Amino acid sequence: MKVGIGILGGGTVGGALLQYLINEQAAIVAKTGLELEVRRVAVRSLSKTRAFPIPVEIITDRPEQLIDDPSIDLVVELMGGLEPAGDLVMRALQAGKPVVTANKELVAARGAELIQRAEEKGVSLLFEAAVGGGIPIIRPLSESLAGERITRVLGIVNGTTNYILTRMSEDDLGFDEAVEEAQALGYAEADPTADVSGADAAAKTAILASLAFGTWVSVDAVYREGIESIEPIDLRFAATLGYIPKLLAIGVETPTGVSARVHPALVPLDHPLASVRGANNAVFIEGPQVGQLLFMGPGAGGGPTATAVLGDIIDAARELLAHAQVAPRIRFAPGRLRDFGEIETKWYVRLEVADAPGVLALVAGTFGEFGVSIKSVWQEGRGEDATLLLITHDALEANQRAAVAALRSLDVVTEVAATIRVQSDEP
Amino acid sequence: MKVGIGILGGGTVGGALLQYLINEQAAIVAKTGLELEVRRVAVRSLSKTRAFPIPVEIITDRPEQLIDDPSIDLVVELMGGLEPAGDLVMRALQAGKPVVTANKELVAARGAELIQRAEEKGVSLLFEAAVGGGIPIIRPLSESLAGERITRVLGIVNGTTNYILTRMSEDDLGFDEAVEEAQALGYAEADPTADVSGADAAAKTAILASLAFGTWVSVDAVYREGIESIEPIDLRFAATLGYIPKLLAIGVETPTGVSARVHPALVPLDHPLASVRGANNAVFIEGPQVGQLLFMGPGAGGGPTATAVLGDIIDAARELLAHAQVAPRIRFAPGRLRDFGEIETKWYVRLEVADAPGVLALVAGTFGEFGVSIKSVWQEGRGEDATLLLITHDALEANQRAAVAALRSLDVVTEVAATIRVQSDEP
Repeated sequence: MKVGIGILGGGTVGGALLQYLINEQAAIVAKTGLELEVRRVAVRSLSKTRAFPIPVEIITDRPEQLIDDPSIDLVVELMGGLEPAGDLVMRALQAGKPVVTANKELVAARGAELIQRAEEKGVSLLFEAAVGGGIPIIRPLSESLAGERITRVLGIVNGTTNYILTRMSEDDLGFDEAVEEAQALGYAEADPTADVSGADAAAKTAILASLAFGTWVSVDAVYREGIESIEPIDLRFAATLGYIPKLLAIGVETPTGVSARVHPALVPLDHPLASVRGANNAVFIEGPQVGQLLFMGPGAGGGPTATAVLGDIIDAARELLAHAQVAPRIRFAPGRLRDFGEIETKWYVRLEVADAPGVLALVAGTFGEFGVSIKSVWQEGRGEDATLLLITHDALEANQRAAVAALRSLDVVTEVAATIRVQSDEP
Repeated sequence: MKVGIGILGGGTVGGALLQYLINEQAAIVAKTGLELEVRRVAVRSLSKTRAFPIPVEIITDRPEQLIDDPSIDLVVELMGGLEPAGDLVMRALQAGKPVVTANKELVAARGAELIQRAEEKGVSLLFEAAVGGGIPIIRPLSESLAGERITRVLGIVNGTTNYILTRMSEDDLGFDEAVEEAQALGYAEADPTADVSGADAAAKTAILASLAFGTWVSVDAVYREGIESIEPIDLRFAATLGYIPKLLAIGVETPTGVSARVHPALVPLDHPLASVRGANNAVFIEGPQVGQLLFMGPGAGGGPTATAVLGDIIDAARELLAHAQVAPRIRFAPGRLRDFGEIETKWYVRLEVADAPGVLALVAGTFGEFGVSIKSVWQEGRGEDATLLLITHDALEANQRAAVAALRSLDVVTEVAATIRVQSDEP
């Protein structure tokens, strides 16, 4: 049976999707029974040269026309960004058309509202490609694990920063150098801010935590730190101590509430996430019944992302043909969001101190005042000064911060040169 | 909204599912909007003592009554085995009731027929729990990746044999000893044949290959070897050479056809599957668009399996409430099955030979006659005799076998003591 598809966006993913839908149409019909016919592709510029040329009879630069076109049964949004994508998606849902989107920024910012509108209209809003590129993670979370009380989500969800950190730690590149290389290879944008600041990862973390815990976690509620201030010297020290840096996405549910955060962390070398290299993504999902699941694969790129989009298209098309009044896959209930200060974390701290008797005792005593105990210490003297590396035990994030602030006011501490959180041994 | 559920089978998974549906009912309603009410549980013996007692008002030993009960909207089959499970599932579908099953044996043997009946009746037949326990793998394959042309499936799909092989290789246990320990821990049945013979893995491989390639692969078409003849001495040699033994499930699609097989293989220690220990499962899925995906987690047990079953129940219940006339998720087309002899494999061969000049040349020459070249050789002399270990390069399985048969007839070869296939370095 025929399903008319409109695609908003003719970039990398849109092009890969269009090409696949055209070239593999017979195979898709054979495997799914669905004739997916692309009837319009809306682009910003009609004159741009594209890797896969869009047939003239379907290209348009008027996205509203695509939404209103009665021959379009299903809308695919691949424009990215909040507007006009948000308005167009809302209008498509309002018109009773199911929407498939890869737009993590939009889903993280307005997901609750869009899902509600989709529910009112009895159509699907699907966004498998918004997190983890080609890795099926949204559908497993919202369908396969719909009955599980998920307690933790932990992963690497931004391939760009993972590539940069991999190059910095394995090949001793500086941050700027690694960013330039990532740009040259097409892994990083001309303006890499969204990736290196953790904003992209924060949007994905908000989506993962929302689906995992059934409480809508807005992207503003995700604590966020980027990788911009990671220095090569700390990566060398970390390697010596058996750690590798990763930008981690972490969501945790406890009886007292839900928390979500994104920050760099030193991961033990024998941790399963330590081996996730380059532009790959990996996500652990944990629950009391199911135990611990790991999903891993390419986190970005035209092919993988288009595959995830296509899976959603097929799912939505099946529902259309079943004339189903679609019930939402997951409902969101209000839940308490825990402040990051209430979460237990471990820290790596690099201090520049005076190389004098009693300094270590003073530093350890300061941590102790805030209930933070020290797991291990290394000192490297250089005449009158010394570098002191500490790794703390688990303690409240608020207390770790207070202890470090107190260290800054000690006379013997020249500089708190670096603080990086440390991930526990267990996955 | 209320959905009446009937469960066939009150064993480990049935008990875990019932307990969860009763204890977590409010949480499930909050998260999914579905009130899943278990109205009948059919068991073999009414008098058996159970970890989670089944309320007397819903227990029955008449499974047919459960199928016919008009208050049962959805049937969950957790009895296992071909009959009477197959007959009951067929009757439930015939009555227009969606069926969720964890029965890999049944799906592998009669899946095509059951799926066809479900299609005729416009209801779902879901079996996420049949492969990989709690790991979402069936839904990703049949939905998320429905549009991808999957070329390879590779994994560890039997936790019992993985536990046994892990103990044998890491702790030097003999096969019988490792089996006894697995039985004591509840990982292996009193009769471990289905696991150690590879039959359980073959059923799962048939299901994975069928869904991945869109061609129904019957379990009889899966080449199968078990782990019974693996000897500790070869595991010690393998460890020295940098390999660990795994029972691999492999499905491959090439332009000339589809093949599926299960056999022990030596896996390089730096291969991602080498680190899958104990009763865990892990599956790689590969396609030209999506690249390489890995799914990992607990492959068996009441909790994980019940979670997968529950995800299917929620999915089927959503469709029921949408009054959807369900189209099949995946269609199967006829495809050519390739004989295992046509597949390229690498072999590890242990020979007992006379320690005389020219023996190695003779052995290498014999392999060469069949187009098999040798990658590496180790020889250990013991007076007049010697042990010769060889690892071959990739060659046709049929040629590897013919070469080994020819070796048997050489005078200088006392015994072909072991042959085990070797997995390539790439995942």
